[in-house]
Amino acid sequence: MPLHGLPEHRRVGPSGGRAPGRGGALMGGTRVFGEPIPRREDPRLLTGQGRYLDDLGRDALAAAFVRSPHAHARILDIDVTDALDVDGLVAIYTWEDLPGRVAEPLPLLIPHPSLTHGRTAYPLARDVVRHVGEPVAMVVARDRYLAEDAASRIRVDYDPLPAVVGIEEAARAEHLVHDDVPGNVGAVLEQRTGDVDAAIEAAPHVLEFRLDIERSASMPLEGRGVYARWDADDGSLRVYSSTQASTSVRAAIAAKLGLPPGKVEVIAPDVGGGFGVKIVHPWPEEILVPWAARLLDREVKWTEDRREHFVAAAHERGQVQHVRVGFDDEGRVLGLDVRILHDHGAYTPYGVIIPIVTSTQLLGPYKIGAYRAEVVSLYTNTVIVTPYRGAGRPQGVFCMERTMDRIADHLGRDRAAVREVNLIRPDEFPYDQGLTFQDGRPLIYDSGDYPALLARIKELIGWDSFEEERARAAAEGRRIGIGLGCYVEGTGVGPYEGGHVEIDTSGRVHVATGLTSQGQGHETVFAQIAAAELGVPVEDVRVTTGDTRRFGYAVGTFASRAAVMSGNAIALAARKVREKALRIAAEALEADPRDLEITDGVVHVKGDPSAAVPLRTVAVLSNPLRYAFDEEAQRATQFAVGGDATEPPLRGEEPGLEGRDYYSPVRSTFAAGMHAAIVETDPDTAEVRILRYAVVHDCGRLINPRIVEGQIHGGVAQGIGGALYERMVYDESGQLLNASFMDFLMPYATEIPRIETAHLETPSPLNPLGIKGAGEAGVIPVSAVIASAVEDAEGIRVHSMPLSPDDLYRLRRRAERDESLRTRSGARAARERAT
Amino acid sequence: MPLHGLPEHRRVGPSGGRAPGRGGALMGGTRVFGEPIPRREDPRLLTGQGRYLDDLGRDALAAAFVRSPHAHARILDIDVTDALDVDGLVAIYTWEDLPGRVAEPLPLLIPHPSLTHGRTAYPLARDVVRHVGEPVAMVVARDRYLAEDAASRIRVDYDPLPAVVGIEEAARAEHLVHDDVPGNVGAVLEQRTGDVDAAIEAAPHVLEFRLDIERSASMPLEGRGVYARWDADDGSLRVYSSTQASTSVRAAIAAKLGLPPGKVEVIAPDVGGGFGVKIVHPWPEEILVPWAARLLDREVKWTEDRREHFVAAAHERGQVQHVRVGFDDEGRVLGLDVRILHDHGAYTPYGVIIPIVTSTQLLGPYKIGAYRAEVVSLYTNTVIVTPYRGAGRPQGVFCMERTMDRIADHLGRDRAAVREVNLIRPDEFPYDQGLTFQDGRPLIYDSGDYPALLARIKELIGWDSFEEERARAAAEGRRIGIGLGCYVEGTGVGPYEGGHVEIDTSGRVHVATGLTSQGQGHETVFAQIAAAELGVPVEDVRVTTGDTRRFGYAVGTFASRAAVMSGNAIALAARKVREKALRIAAEALEADPRDLEITDGVVHVKGDPSAAVPLRTVAVLSNPLRYAFDEEAQRATQFAVGGDATEPPLRGEEPGLEGRDYYSPVRSTFAAGMHAAIVETDPDTAEVRILRYAVVHDCGRLINPRIVEGQIHGGVAQGIGGALYERMVYDESGQLLNASFMDFLMPYATEIPRIETAHLETPSPLNPLGIKGAGEAGVIPVSAVIASAVEDAEGIRVHSMPLSPDDLYRLRRRAERDESLRTRSGARAARERAT
Repeated sequence: MPLHGLPEHRRVGPSGGRAPGRGGALMGGTRVFGEPIPRREDPRLLTGQGRYLDDLGRDALAAAFVRSPHAHARILDIDVTDALDVDGLVAIYTWEDLPGRVAEPLPLLIPHPSLTHGRTAYPLARDVVRHVGEPVAMVVARDRYLAEDAASRIRVDYDPLPAVVGIEEAARAEHLVHDDVPGNVGAVLEQRTGDVDAAIEAAPHVLEFRLDIERSASMPLEGRGVYARWDADDGSLRVYSSTQASTSVRAAIAAKLGLPPGKVEVIAPDVGGGFGVKIVHPWPEEILVPWAARLLDREVKWTEDRREHFVAAAHERGQVQHVRVGFDDEGRVLGLDVRILHDHGAYTPYGVIIPIVTSTQLLGPYKIGAYRAEVVSLYTNTVIVTPYRGAGRPQGVFCMERTMDRIADHLGRDRAAVREVNLIRPDEFPYDQGLTFQDGRPLIYDSGDYPALLARIKELIGWDSFEEERARAAAEGRRIGIGLGCYVEGTGVGPYEGGHVEIDTSGRVHVATGLTSQGQGHETVFAQIAAAELGVPVEDVRVTTGDTRRFGYAVGTFASRAAVMSGNAIALAARKVREKALRIAAEALEADPRDLEITDGVVHVKGDPSAAVPLRTVAVLSNPLRYAFDEEAQRATQFAVGGDATEPPLRGEEPGLEGRDYYSPVRSTFAAGMHAAIVETDPDTAEVRILRYAVVHDCGRLINPRIVEGQIHGGVAQGIGGALYERMVYDESGQLLNASFMDFLMPYATEIPRIETAHLETPSPLNPLGIKGAGEAGVIPVSAVIASAVEDAEGIRVHSMPLSPDDLYRLRRRAERDESLRTRSGARAARERAT
Repeated sequence: MPLHGLPEHRRVGPSGGRAPGRGGALMGGTRVFGEPIPRREDPRLLTGQGRYLDDLGRDALAAAFVRSPHAHARILDIDVTDALDVDGLVAIYTWEDLPGRVAEPLPLLIPHPSLTHGRTAYPLARDVVRHVGEPVAMVVARDRYLAEDAASRIRVDYDPLPAVVGIEEAARAEHLVHDDVPGNVGAVLEQRTGDVDAAIEAAPHVLEFRLDIERSASMPLEGRGVYARWDADDGSLRVYSSTQASTSVRAAIAAKLGLPPGKVEVIAPDVGGGFGVKIVHPWPEEILVPWAARLLDREVKWTEDRREHFVAAAHERGQVQHVRVGFDDEGRVLGLDVRILHDHGAYTPYGVIIPIVTSTQLLGPYKIGAYRAEVVSLYTNTVIVTPYRGAGRPQGVFCMERTMDRIADHLGRDRAAVREVNLIRPDEFPYDQGLTFQDGRPLIYDSGDYPALLARIKELIGWDSFEEERARAAAEGRRIGIGLGCYVEGTGVGPYEGGHVEIDTSGRVHVATGLTSQGQGHETVFAQIAAAELGVPVEDVRVTTGDTRRFGYAVGTFASRAAVMSGNAIALAARKVREKALRIAAEALEADPRDLEITDGVVHVKGDPSAAVPLRTVAVLSNPLRYAFDEEAQRATQFAVGGDATEPPLRGEEPGLEGRDYYSPVRSTFAAGMHAAIVETDPDTAEVRILRYAVVHDCGRLINPRIVEGQIHGGVAQGIGGALYERMVYDESGQLLNASFMDFLMPYATEIPRIETAHLETPSPLNPLGIKGAGEAGVIPVSAVIASAVEDAEGIRVHSMPLSPDDLYRLRRRAERDESLRTRSGARAARERAT
């Protein structure tokens, strides 16, 4: 059954109860596309057979880094004398030792007109350090212990400078992070549609408030790591990196080291989570380690330790938002004005993509009369800020959904009902928000059914019957609350990905795409796509990702784009291979290609399984060499010897049963979802316990519901971390006080409730498979949902995240204190400021 | 200036005096295509910077082989006990240790219907050895010395069997090489056109004689070698082999070791000559060394030593030919009947391609009334016989040209005049010889001007004034003679080659093709082709050959096919890249692609050099990533951010300024040449000295005359070796008596005269560049030319090659003895038998 047709919008029940839908390809009676088959990588990964960065290069030299202990300081001197005594020391490098382009500042990856004062770090600090953890010297030694020993003996003489820590302090600009960046302002950007001032002025109701979102971080269980081998015979460099963007790392290394890109192989091996931090490239270590490997002509490896990951990788989230919203009596938003102060840390290698995403994705499933977002992106003497799963969306959704709850509260209306009146209707797609998306293209939602999502999440969580539940709990002396959060997520951002599909002469199918995997299940879903397109058992398909040897052009894994971009590219490539296989088989079978089909890896005449040729033989026939290396293949090629003497042997085909194609969409596709939770708050300890968590999710056609649900579960777990636990605690001197897993709290499985999931499928009209991205979805609305539910339980206002028991306790106290203020309310004149 | 048009037939003067012709591409005032630029590989190769097989893997374990000392024996027992004491021994393998497909006989590469009894060897002898040198056991040790020590301690108990040595003994079949091959006959094949018996019967004159051509061998200065690395992390194998066919070696290793081809990388590094012996694949060592490397998870290397190359690689040439020819009074051949006994050695891994070539290429530039060649290809207990430069053609030309000389002698006519009347005329092309070529396709000559070649060689050597010269020499008591030899060579055999051309973001051009190089100058000529097509300086072009990582599909380097096949594929690929560059540049320059040209690596509007964009920037623009790694590129991509929002970023193009194409001809193209020599024979020592040697050569359009001349010079030198020095001297027990460079004579520079060369260019109409192959040309007619000249000097008949002073001395004695026989002659009844 071909996949070309997009199935009609269909609704699918909760996990496990999914009804067999249309549109999947049948394979020997088993549907491949759309089926919740187990993850093919799990037997390997769950039995410890994964090959992560640190599993490689066991004989390699080890690198360690001397990192700044100061948030801001001038380097006066670096004295390596004592380190030279360490037995097994191979080399010590400081900025002075770096040649040519290796010594230059790292590239600014995503220039944007708003980023008027972009700044990047030197790979090793040149004269000033701007955050604790900034690398100052690299040590290479026989093993990591010796390298650390030597690093600890290097004495760096610093002249400390005042540290700028926190958004307010950055905005005050009493001190500057970069001497030549006035006001610490890296970028000012605005998104607007309509006349927001006039709209708010004319609105029956206006609210104004402030929101605070703390810093958190991707925090993959495997940190970063780089392992490089120089091949002097070949003049080539092989670099393994725990990266989300191997082709881009390759481009950076090639440029920095002056090598042709073809002489640099970058491979992302098994990667233990990325969540965004590994999309940054090149990390200084990704340049320095390969450079040293070539210079020393020795294998060199560096594996990030956890403290390094806290202070020398990247953070995200930290924003302060000032909201002003005008709305009518039903809660319809007439004008929304948001001022966002964004803390981008000490440098901007990844540009200002996060606040761009926040300011454009904030509107979610709603149509807003007029909108303006102004972003000021600020330097601080802290770790750089780059995208972390959700990438600015959790902050935007927190803002929008807090706004919806405030409107409902103000009007005394049901929170869901207020959202309902603002939703974009199904007949309004494609819906143009009138903004410019992160890819520089108009922000146009391709498809969706937001009212259906809302109805479904209400049904799933029992929204309309919650008051009975609350009453029952109250009767038991328990406080419970219900919360809701909605979002739309631009996924599958361009510009492109490519896929390569090859059927070899053993019948194995090799699928390659350039983007990388960090555990998402690409080996499974890409194999499902190829198997469905080709008509082969999914077991016969092998998938390679993130290996520049196999596919040299790619963008990378981020922005929930892998399935949309590479999935469609692989489908297109597989269709080319299928067509080619049918042409060649048709000749061998003396049939019309249109009369053929492929079942279980065998091309046969429809309705006549005896007129058949296996794909492995088609692969032999595809290459008009005069011989092959097994008997069956040799028999097959016998026919081809000599061939039709009037035609060239290739007959206009390229040799090999393989095909390559690219998918490059006009614009992104927009997934959506709504989450709801019921929480219980402890009256004494102020602990928040999540009793139920429900997700309705629409990422278009599902390739594998099990994997989508896994993504949602992981995302919700990470979102719960952000909602209740995770924060980066800096002191005023810029020291990160909780830079370890002892002090930085992340949820265990014990903190994560069972997540009830249902799917809606509104296929994307933008791509052949009708799919949308799902990788980040789970995390996006969680803070908003939890805040909403805690507010509902407590009758207080939650304006910052995360919300620790301590925070909640303080909010309760403040609420009691402010009780008198609460009584003030009014129609148009209401102005309220929450801290 | 485009290369697309084929220049008209033009005549070019002797070396150095070549007049500027038409059709070359002008590059900054310098013609690139067609110019005799110096070989770009020479600075590297001539200063010892080449990286040959044995330069690699210095830390690898070493393999050595126990080889049979018997030409034919049954293996009773292999006792390795004593070898186990050798310190540093890692492993010993015999056939019993080989698993699965590794244990199977090697593949029979080119099956042919005539090869009814093809046999191949086991990689290690299983129970019977069939030639001295056949591998029996493999030893792996810490270094080669230790491996050889251990090998020498392995005791193999043999039961010797009678050895079949020499064509006559094989044909007698008193003993069999293979029990199951009756008569020792591997193949019987026939080529025929017309009714040869009737034609000879009706001919006014008939001659019958026998010719003997000795065995020789390719004898590259670098022997074979294999170096393998298993990458356990990657599950991949990298194999360096001194091979002429890296993709085929890869296919064989993958099949034998059960690896996907994509997990096997085969690289031919710098290779010190091949001349055919390295096209055989897989050699047993090419399977065994990688197999051991994977098994041991250690690098393993084997480098062939000279004795191994003599007894365990391959030989060629050895044939006995029985000729019967009928002709008219002018010497026009009416019927030619040749019976060829071909010695193919102990096994037939490469099929019967050599006698196929002999029997089809024998006719040379002549049209023969009726023709029949019958080949019997025989097993002997000697080293296998596989193609060596010329690959059966020297034997065929020896036969045909000896026949022409015999006819001239018989009729008392000028030897050149007899050839003249038999030549195919220029207006007869395409000329169908009515035979089936080695590729299974009709033997049709595409173009040529044989009368012009003959006129030119006569002019160059001074044919018509030679009698005066002879008289002057005779007056000085010196014997001199003049000889002539003509040939046509099918070159550029299919089925295909491919080329990949990429311009990277630094402006460097990377050209890759799958076939291999053995010193021919591919780095130079392929760069010339790409530079001319692209409009870039030849210095900016880098060429990679024989590296499966860079190009995975190829046939290999043999049959004078590299320039024709890969050269045209590269030209076609470069044209794609040029078109793409013009499209992209046109957009950047807001111009029409048709108004653009490329000069010195810069695309510019014709006549307006200011409206220009360098190719390196076009390369950046070709990949719609959002960033690049140098400032100029980043500026260039600024324009591309966002792009035209109505179009997908790729706009239907694949990313990257690169292109791939294949060239697959309907049939081969036919080069031709004529050689002439003047020799002096010493009346006392019977030494033959070559006074002058002239070549007129037509390989279609010349890419680089200097390289073509280098090929001709090397070929003539190798031909002189075959004509005067080289032979494999086997004793009756199958021992090769001269298996070293002390005993096997090859000419030094001192034996090679200055070679006078002139070119004719009759472009091939079959390929875009109009070129024909030139790699083997030089060697083909040399034996015939020298035989002709010695006959002319001595007044004797030369019916065997090589001709040592000893041989000549014996011929003189026999001639004196046979003087009386010489007087017998007559018209139709003449029958003569020479031994």
